[in-house]
Amino acid sequence: MANVCATHTGGNTKNLEYLFSPKEVAIVGASGNKGSVGFTIFENFLKGGFGGRVYAVNPNRAAVQGKKAYKSILDIKGKIDLAVVVVPAKLVPLVYDQCVRKKVKAVIVISAGFSEIGEKKLTRNLQRMIDEHPNTRVVGPNCIGIFVPEHNLDTSFFEKSRMKRPRKGSVSFLSQSGAMGAVILDWASTQEFGFRKFVSYGNAMDVDEADLLEYLSKDRKTKVITAYLEGAKEGRKFFNIAKRTSLKKPIVVLKGGVTDEAHAATASHTGSLAGSAEVYEAVFRQAGIVRADNLLELFAFAKLLENEPLPKGNRVQIITNGGGFGIVATDAVVRAGLQLAKMSNKNKEAIKKKVPDTVTVNNPIDLTGDADVKRYVVSLKAALADDNVDMVVVIFLFTTPTLGSDLVRELAKVRKISKKPVVAISIGSKYTEKKLKDMEKLGLITFNYPSVAARALKGLSNYAQFLRENKKKC
Amino acid sequence: MANVCATHTGGNTKNLEYLFSPKEVAIVGASGNKGSVGFTIFENFLKGGFGGRVYAVNPNRAAVQGKKAYKSILDIKGKIDLAVVVVPAKLVPLVYDQCVRKKVKAVIVISAGFSEIGEKKLTRNLQRMIDEHPNTRVVGPNCIGIFVPEHNLDTSFFEKSRMKRPRKGSVSFLSQSGAMGAVILDWASTQEFGFRKFVSYGNAMDVDEADLLEYLSKDRKTKVITAYLEGAKEGRKFFNIAKRTSLKKPIVVLKGGVTDEAHAATASHTGSLAGSAEVYEAVFRQAGIVRADNLLELFAFAKLLENEPLPKGNRVQIITNGGGFGIVATDAVVRAGLQLAKMSNKNKEAIKKKVPDTVTVNNPIDLTGDADVKRYVVSLKAALADDNVDMVVVIFLFTTPTLGSDLVRELAKVRKISKKPVVAISIGSKYTEKKLKDMEKLGLITFNYPSVAARALKGLSNYAQFLRENKKKC
Repeated sequence: MANVCATHTGGNTKNLEYLFSPKEVAIVGASGNKGSVGFTIFENFLKGGFGGRVYAVNPNRAAVQGKKAYKSILDIKGKIDLAVVVVPAKLVPLVYDQCVRKKVKAVIVISAGFSEIGEKKLTRNLQRMIDEHPNTRVVGPNCIGIFVPEHNLDTSFFEKSRMKRPRKGSVSFLSQSGAMGAVILDWASTQEFGFRKFVSYGNAMDVDEADLLEYLSKDRKTKVITAYLEGAKEGRKFFNIAKRTSLKKPIVVLKGGVTDEAHAATASHTGSLAGSAEVYEAVFRQAGIVRADNLLELFAFAKLLENEPLPKGNRVQIITNGGGFGIVATDAVVRAGLQLAKMSNKNKEAIKKKVPDTVTVNNPIDLTGDADVKRYVVSLKAALADDNVDMVVVIFLFTTPTLGSDLVRELAKVRKISKKPVVAISIGSKYTEKKLKDMEKLGLITFNYPSVAARALKGLSNYAQFLRENKKKC
Repeated sequence: MANVCATHTGGNTKNLEYLFSPKEVAIVGASGNKGSVGFTIFENFLKGGFGGRVYAVNPNRAAVQGKKAYKSILDIKGKIDLAVVVVPAKLVPLVYDQCVRKKVKAVIVISAGFSEIGEKKLTRNLQRMIDEHPNTRVVGPNCIGIFVPEHNLDTSFFEKSRMKRPRKGSVSFLSQSGAMGAVILDWASTQEFGFRKFVSYGNAMDVDEADLLEYLSKDRKTKVITAYLEGAKEGRKFFNIAKRTSLKKPIVVLKGGVTDEAHAATASHTGSLAGSAEVYEAVFRQAGIVRADNLLELFAFAKLLENEPLPKGNRVQIITNGGGFGIVATDAVVRAGLQLAKMSNKNKEAIKKKVPDTVTVNNPIDLTGDADVKRYVVSLKAALADDNVDMVVVIFLFTTPTLGSDLVRELAKVRKISKKPVVAISIGSKYTEKKLKDMEKLGLITFNYPSVAARALKGLSNYAQFLRENKKKC
């Protein structure tokens, strides 16, 4: 294992705060044509509750969506913190030059049409200008930009009728890909799950994943950093920042382009060098990054890391009222690389005294199909109190006639007495989904599939182990 | 590879039709106590639209839920096709004896409390009686029994307000576990997915998985057989029947107890001998069984096998309007063991002529974020027509402003011109879920996650390969 305590060359976080909490914003390319990107972005600013001031820049219109339009950003009187640029690619250098002259602190270039489609000359030209003006920070091009629920700041070009936004929370998300960014925002809106800061940074011609990681590592309210990456612009810089950040908060990464075939496709996407799967796997492990193998895992890991305490080890106790469901969960737990906990005889006997003889008190604890709330309460309490148990998976067939309506409330109470991770699992239709929602509202994390829950617990456990092994060294 | 064409010792299917289409049914243990199993089963018969005659047997009541109750099944005048037994375990032998004397054709013993909790004497006693009367077929004990939507036949003891039932269709499902059975019924009700025949058969003291497989292999309207198994009662019999059945229709199995730890737990569950993971893996492969590694895959495989044609090979073309989403799907396809298709230059040029230069026509075909319906139609048509493409994965970011409302309809039309498997992938909130539902209604199979879709296509492809390798031999 590499020395994770090494000091690192920091990311460049200069002026990045203007990306996430600007007071004065100009939308260059704000449009009155419904359905266009420039329309939606400007509309989202006007109607989305953004607290700062927003200006429309459009050389061809006197007004856009009822607001005065400026011919150029230079015509605006006041200072501008952030310019959001949605003009055709070939006009971007001109607009960028005006932003520099206006002393704009940060620029988000939404426009596509650069290296990702092989536009070499235009890309080179813009890159040179960006490099010459390090004080004007640039996100993009080829991105959907920033979303910060706290400030109702939202530069993504999706209509709210089509794409919902998540609520305020403590997960931040970096995405090289705009599509993956949009998908995760939309999905997260359906979950008991909140976002702190979201960035889709596209081609990373200035601000890259390492800079953003550095910035988020210092953002106190970001509890978990999640990311979709195809490649790091500067591998060493990324690694150094990631390993330091991991000691402070978890980083979950879904790496796109891990197979040779997908790797080849990334070149024509964000134009980044994706790097071999083996290299990334080693880098991620040494940096303490929790690696998600797919979208399902990315979501699961983020949810768990945001909400659950870290386990002391990897021993899992399973409690179920469905025998087969418990068997499937056992397979999932073992396959994920976790261990089945062995509860002490004392605690097992304590359960046995309070439940019928038909209950199997082992691992899984099978409360059987006629389980009532009491059996769950008794078992969960004993499992949480047992020194041989690090995490608990509680499985519910909510549909049985014997489970009373006080189930969710009672279990949420028991869950609070302990700092061990607990996840609940069930799947079904409306009734079951409602019960799961109720659980999440009371702070019990839920999953539909044992395999996904088990992988997520393994991610949590891996991160806890990284901290145990590395924190004391530094 | 073993000789799959071998003649086999058949399963015992005598009188099994009375389980699935009885005319006269007696519920022994029908109850008036709301919340009890005997109440719910009887109520589901009375109110569920069952077309035959149903009798209540309850020695302690003159009437149950407003219907005359008989002291014993022997007191009923007419013949009885099926008895559903929900009495305490210790009374089951007595009730079974009465069923035999009444010449009942089939008995479903819902009651638990036999080998699964170590009740040796009672189990031995019942087993002896069952063995002596081979004409009275028994499902169970320790099960939830039968569900046949076509006849509104439903012996499961779940209230409909808690657990929904799937509609009529062509998938049949066998489950050793009642819990897994209940979960799959409930989940299936939320899908564009129909059931033909469902059996939860529990401890399998008479009718076992092999008998049921044999029966379903002959059931013309069953297109796909799915199963949750912990172990086969008679391995050789199961293998022989499975391999013959696989040549007629696909069998998808989720095997519970594949890890040593879970294997140990199965003994205390249905009392079956689960067998080692390696043995089952070999048996499944040789028998052409599509093996699901988890619940998520079981659902995905069943959905795909019910609806999609079989592919001629394993080459997949990906079409997307989100670059990153396409990369993730490429990783998923390659990791699942499928190949990326290489479309002919002719077909690629045909697409290029009809789309903007920004579109990458490769694999994935990246239609880019401003894709309209036409780009999808043109690409899907070309991919389906290409001899180098066996299956197509179409990814949608439905939320972009440029995708018109005619998308689903137009693609469903294109899909119909070809007999290649096509799956659509997207994930999001309400708007996206609605689009996916619309697609499924028009016969386009959808998934939320590329990893799940890819694994399901691999299952489809494996089954197609099994048929290619074995059908000609027989």
